[in-house]
Amino acid sequence: MEEYIYPLQSQWDKLIERPTASYDDLEDLVSNVFEQIKTRGDDAIFEYTNEFDKVQIHKLQVDKKEILDGVNNVPKDLKNAIQKAKNNIEKFHKAQITKTVKVETQPGVKCWQKKQPIEKVGLYIPGGSAPLFSSILMLAIPAQIAGCNDIILCSPPNSHGKLPKELLYTAQLCGVTKIFKVGGIQAIAGMTFGTESIPNVYKIFGPGNQYVTVAKQMASRYKTAIDMPAGPSELLIVADETADPDFVASDLLSQAEHGSDSQVILVTTKKSILENIKGAINEQLQNLPRKNIAKKALINSKMIVLENDETAVAFINSYGPEHYIICVENENYYVDNVRNAGSVFIGKYTPESAGDYASGTNHTLPTNGYSKQYSGVNLDSFTKAITFQKINKQGIQDLGESIELMAAAEGLVGHKNAISLRLKKINNEV
Amino acid sequence: MEEYIYPLQSQWDKLIERPTASYDDLEDLVSNVFEQIKTRGDDAIFEYTNEFDKVQIHKLQVDKKEILDGVNNVPKDLKNAIQKAKNNIEKFHKAQITKTVKVETQPGVKCWQKKQPIEKVGLYIPGGSAPLFSSILMLAIPAQIAGCNDIILCSPPNSHGKLPKELLYTAQLCGVTKIFKVGGIQAIAGMTFGTESIPNVYKIFGPGNQYVTVAKQMASRYKTAIDMPAGPSELLIVADETADPDFVASDLLSQAEHGSDSQVILVTTKKSILENIKGAINEQLQNLPRKNIAKKALINSKMIVLENDETAVAFINSYGPEHYIICVENENYYVDNVRNAGSVFIGKYTPESAGDYASGTNHTLPTNGYSKQYSGVNLDSFTKAITFQKINKQGIQDLGESIELMAAAEGLVGHKNAISLRLKKINNEV
Repeated sequence: MEEYIYPLQSQWDKLIERPTASYDDLEDLVSNVFEQIKTRGDDAIFEYTNEFDKVQIHKLQVDKKEILDGVNNVPKDLKNAIQKAKNNIEKFHKAQITKTVKVETQPGVKCWQKKQPIEKVGLYIPGGSAPLFSSILMLAIPAQIAGCNDIILCSPPNSHGKLPKELLYTAQLCGVTKIFKVGGIQAIAGMTFGTESIPNVYKIFGPGNQYVTVAKQMASRYKTAIDMPAGPSELLIVADETADPDFVASDLLSQAEHGSDSQVILVTTKKSILENIKGAINEQLQNLPRKNIAKKALINSKMIVLENDETAVAFINSYGPEHYIICVENENYYVDNVRNAGSVFIGKYTPESAGDYASGTNHTLPTNGYSKQYSGVNLDSFTKAITFQKINKQGIQDLGESIELMAAAEGLVGHKNAISLRLKKINNEV
Repeated sequence: MEEYIYPLQSQWDKLIERPTASYDDLEDLVSNVFEQIKTRGDDAIFEYTNEFDKVQIHKLQVDKKEILDGVNNVPKDLKNAIQKAKNNIEKFHKAQITKTVKVETQPGVKCWQKKQPIEKVGLYIPGGSAPLFSSILMLAIPAQIAGCNDIILCSPPNSHGKLPKELLYTAQLCGVTKIFKVGGIQAIAGMTFGTESIPNVYKIFGPGNQYVTVAKQMASRYKTAIDMPAGPSELLIVADETADPDFVASDLLSQAEHGSDSQVILVTTKKSILENIKGAINEQLQNLPRKNIAKKALINSKMIVLENDETAVAFINSYGPEHYIICVENENYYVDNVRNAGSVFIGKYTPESAGDYASGTNHTLPTNGYSKQYSGVNLDSFTKAITFQKINKQGIQDLGESIELMAAAEGLVGHKNAISLRLKKINNEV
């Protein structure tokens, strides 16, 4: 990790930069796969699965027997752990339900706003070395609470043409309606256009590598919404001498092991704490199975010493971390001044791992500074707000003239007429 | 308007199609303007304003004196009308404020979700034949309620290098912090990158022509969010024999006058009502100043007769109208079954004009079927939700093992370690 001691504010722009890649060179490939799947459907998906995932499959949807086999083979203690996580995630996301907002803005003018579920959503779960079933919890649980009708899931098959049992178990536990063995660009294209097997969806959620990221961007050109722009995962910790260096090191490493493009930042106003934390990192790193990945991530990472709490808070808000751990004595000051962050973890017994799996908050969060304008996934990510209004005779009589004046000033006489006609008929009735 | 009597469900896909244009041919132009403004800032903006808007300006920001002059010249009755609209819009959007959601998901595990304003937002208001000051009400009022720090506004100067007085009046009334005389692609690029005069923003809102639409799409590639994908405005009315044909015609025309690419749809289960409505349209059309625009829009428009209420509701939800007027006896059935729509207007005294200007609801709404997955602009469009969590000793002791099991099953030993270390230290303390 590079160290920056009292950097000038003019250097901040450089310090808040993320190690992002440009994916322009993937656009042609992605666009080509989209075109093929749009026109040839399942056939094209089978071919790409053979080409990219090196496995020949003949059926995309996972059938009931496969699901049941998976479910039966997950160890009981892991099932209990997943169920416990589900309970917490459910509680927190159910608490986010908003009632209909209803207001009589003036006598006879009733306006209300009501959330409705997005009817068809698609969840993408990456494959690779380990089954990331925790992301199913984070996406399918709020989708189910929101009331989405179709919750479909796509994930790439392994070399035997199967999906991991943990994934099948979690999917059926959380109300996923259909599961498909398809990954990468072809999964995103399938959910965008629909094929013989895969239904099209209105919004696509979930993490993925650079191919999936570009494919999701492409999907958004075809009337499909996406959860948020994706980037490598990141964590910022602010710590002082009251923080346990071992805990801080373990949290930095838990983020660093995600991928070699992950970024971890330590911010402090106490230069003296750096040595112990560095020592703890080096010690813990030795025993990590993914230490090569973590080491690479640490190269992109920084330890930054700032003058005082005020400067530290300003820096952190300009960075806008995805995950943000606060481990300082002056905790309330930092918490009260959070402006830009995905999810905030407070105090020494609140590691990022807790939110990644089981405390109840969502782990699908804005990276790359997008916390300045995007929320992490939450219940409302699966709904849209519709407004309603009903105006009675008195309401339109009281409000009509104002509308006429404004419509006329905008040169929209048709808009004005819609009011004038009504006012005239009401007057004639009297 | 074309008529479709009892169309087969297999024809619906065709019927719900919008008259959309492809803007691929504008991408090169937009990309070029973005590049110039990114590198050359204000100078490039002055040049493009000269080229596109045919006016030479030397200062982008509107100064206090210009604003004051504008404010003083707006007629008193129009000011009152705007103020009345502001009151209603404010009431409805203030009612959308959500309190912090706080849950103890299990003993010692506290999670909460808090909305924070997006600090810097940009509003785009198109120029053209008439000043669309009503869009300022719809965007600046919720931005101010949300607590956005910087609310900047861009709108193209007229041939005298000025902005319309109604626009200046509404902007200062609604808390816009800076107003700039710049339009089109160059305005969007300016707000995306920032220039010597124009601050960059985190999210851009507002309507616009095809150039602005493509520019907003381009902005979203540069870490700037946008309100929603834009398309031509549209209205669907469901009516029966209890609806007043004059009112229905006036509402259809108020939508049709927006632009020649607007679309209006009449749905009914009562074929007999069509003749009277057509008669009323033809009659009212004669007196519209924008009748040529409205006539063109009517060519893209349809009258559709369906078998029964159930089929009508299914069709309307598959169309997902931006504006949706319900004028039938069986009103509750239609209201209760709204799944996809931007804003719904109920009953004969609730014309779309009311919501366009003054009833309180927002008029920035999803078009082109995007109501299936997007909300119209609302208070939350100007905020993002941040989650927080704080776990105590008991919490991590009770939850720790579940997290360890799940992290291990995902092959993320670093994540597991962050828990194990804490559990170990807690046990050693005892």
